[in-house]
Amino acid sequence: MLIEDFSLKNVNRIYLDHNATTPLAITVQQKVGQWSMEWGNPSSIHQSSRGPKQILRSARISIAEGLGCHPLELIFTSGGSEGNSQIIQGVYQRQQKLPMEERRTRYLYSAVEHPSVVKTMQFLKSLGADVQEIKVKRSGELDWQDFESKLNDQTALVSIMFANNETGNIFPVKEIAKRCHQKGALYHSDSVQALGKFPVDLKDWGVDFATFSGHKFYSLKGSGIVFVKSGVELPSLIFGGGQERGRRAGTENVLPIASLSHMMDYLEDLPEAMSRMGNLRDYLQDLMQRTIPGISITGGQSPRLCNSLSVVIDGIDGETLLMNLDIQGISVSTGAACSSGNPEPSPVLLAMGLSREEAQSSLRLSLGWGSTQNEIETFVGVLVGVVERVRRLKEQSSVEELGHASL
Amino acid sequence: MLIEDFSLKNVNRIYLDHNATTPLAITVQQKVGQWSMEWGNPSSIHQSSRGPKQILRSARISIAEGLGCHPLELIFTSGGSEGNSQIIQGVYQRQQKLPMEERRTRYLYSAVEHPSVVKTMQFLKSLGADVQEIKVKRSGELDWQDFESKLNDQTALVSIMFANNETGNIFPVKEIAKRCHQKGALYHSDSVQALGKFPVDLKDWGVDFATFSGHKFYSLKGSGIVFVKSGVELPSLIFGGGQERGRRAGTENVLPIASLSHMMDYLEDLPEAMSRMGNLRDYLQDLMQRTIPGISITGGQSPRLCNSLSVVIDGIDGETLLMNLDIQGISVSTGAACSSGNPEPSPVLLAMGLSREEAQSSLRLSLGWGSTQNEIETFVGVLVGVVERVRRLKEQSSVEELGHASL
Repeated sequence: MLIEDFSLKNVNRIYLDHNATTPLAITVQQKVGQWSMEWGNPSSIHQSSRGPKQILRSARISIAEGLGCHPLELIFTSGGSEGNSQIIQGVYQRQQKLPMEERRTRYLYSAVEHPSVVKTMQFLKSLGADVQEIKVKRSGELDWQDFESKLNDQTALVSIMFANNETGNIFPVKEIAKRCHQKGALYHSDSVQALGKFPVDLKDWGVDFATFSGHKFYSLKGSGIVFVKSGVELPSLIFGGGQERGRRAGTENVLPIASLSHMMDYLEDLPEAMSRMGNLRDYLQDLMQRTIPGISITGGQSPRLCNSLSVVIDGIDGETLLMNLDIQGISVSTGAACSSGNPEPSPVLLAMGLSREEAQSSLRLSLGWGSTQNEIETFVGVLVGVVERVRRLKEQSSVEELGHASL
Repeated sequence: MLIEDFSLKNVNRIYLDHNATTPLAITVQQKVGQWSMEWGNPSSIHQSSRGPKQILRSARISIAEGLGCHPLELIFTSGGSEGNSQIIQGVYQRQQKLPMEERRTRYLYSAVEHPSVVKTMQFLKSLGADVQEIKVKRSGELDWQDFESKLNDQTALVSIMFANNETGNIFPVKEIAKRCHQKGALYHSDSVQALGKFPVDLKDWGVDFATFSGHKFYSLKGSGIVFVKSGVELPSLIFGGGQERGRRAGTENVLPIASLSHMMDYLEDLPEAMSRMGNLRDYLQDLMQRTIPGISITGGQSPRLCNSLSVVIDGIDGETLLMNLDIQGISVSTGAACSSGNPEPSPVLLAMGLSREEAQSSLRLSLGWGSTQNEIETFVGVLVGVVERVRRLKEQSSVEELGHASL
């Protein structure tokens, strides 16, 4: 594996927020100019469409191979949120077209889903659907008892992610798919966090729908993938021309699709990358626990993505920490990027049963293919100092407060 | 104006299909690599988000200035089809939330709208909305009588484009907006064909919603703009994070947005570009009429985009013509790119009252900022030869058929 292809040396920062977005692979950067020359409209029937059309065709084949499915089971979209929105709204639209006595009315999703799933589900609820949330335990595992009590033969769709973007906890999609199908429900897995961190094999997983996003795997923003199992129908969310066999209209965004397709070649290095990231993550976790008192790992005992680490650092405000680290050239996160700037603690961590205080003292660290041991050590060194300083300041200010109070 | 910035010399083709998509401006090509370095997630709160966030902020300001509106009246989307889908579905969703007695049920659109409008309207119809098509005359003008007879105080939304993508015919958006508002209806104008061919002044137009697409104006695919007039509400179509003030979720596609923003600087050259393209188009039309017998112009007597020309060439199959021209290095179109490959004649031309035969004998020519007189002359020279050959072959085959028949 060419770790240099994912190195951020030129940026001169330590980037530990790969679950939010990844840098471009160096080889993607190098080819952006070349791909962008294929500016033709793939739907035209003259020469300028041929290059773009060929890119789309070969991208569909290579991405399908990378995901373990058939090329015609893929729909190109603009990203993960669009995909999740389309699948959930699409299943609902299909159900609404059925005669009342055949119509299924229940929709399930886990309490730690991405906002694009949660909010689309809430939208269905506002339309009158019977929408229910499935609990997730503090360990990061699905609450099977809650799941079984809510999954019934009125269930149209279950949406449970492959892996959580904050804790990295992995859900057993194969088992969930089996149980959904026993009740005749369709199963959607938001798998945006899987690519580049876990082998994807959609046929083996047995899911009906899955979503992916190119910019979580070192390629350009603007390309998303919806997987729809052959034989399952999914209506359009975006109407118009006949692109994507009538399932997603709009001129195809060839450039980011080309970059995602290019990244598929790297999947042969996935086992090596996973093992490297896994070792580094374990080293990071261990180092933090040894050097910083009052630290606990969220979801650490359950299956986890090899690159993810969610920690609670007692008595420290996560955002304060983030900003101090940022000044020192290190990018980390307190929760999902799409909820950043939001002063509320992470809904994912609260759903897992952490207190507001614990959630607010959390940091999310996510490594990438280019992360190095040196970066990890530098990061922990800086973190130790920042934590000590913040804790000292906090102590002083409470002593002062006490002092004032006693006056 | 730097016409060289739009030259296609390196492609060595004559491209007359700018209404389908435009090549990248040379200066866009030059900057793609640089912009793509801003790969951070704009929603993050650490350093890597700052560049992308700054691009988005300044793009919103420059695009708003170019369109004559306020920056917060813009929503970044993935393209024109998404925008049209969101606006029409969004207005419907809002109406459905109103109490029955306040709810408006009628939706109007012109017979020559883009498929993204037509099909979304048909979707509303399938949900039970009262959806009506407004006629367009053979001249390309709106049938005002039909419009007035269908517009009533039950009308929620009227969708009539700024200019048609096939004929270039321009609709009087200001007048339509006025009449819609008299009845309390909202007015949406699909203005995808306006940018770079006509001055856009949304405040002056008085529309409630408008849609634009970056790849029709020499920038990268993947950026679309929805204009929503201040005070008008539009719900999300794509749910998720809080991007675009909660009106369009999903990580922003910074790269094509940067390129569209960059193109706004060229709008100061618009008057010159329009005059150049208009003169060239008139020259082209005149040259074709003088050198090719049996040619007629569609919509030529009504207001038209300066760059567009739709012609019927008697007795010639448009697709045969297109393919012959393609072989000789010239890109033209028979209709909208998104309907290409479809053997059916253009629905736009049929809706205007052309016969199937006329529609099938149509060519769409659309010039760009880089088109030259030399290209026009070369094109017409080739076209004359192709038309003569096709007509001769057709004549021969009918003589032979006659001969066979008389045996």
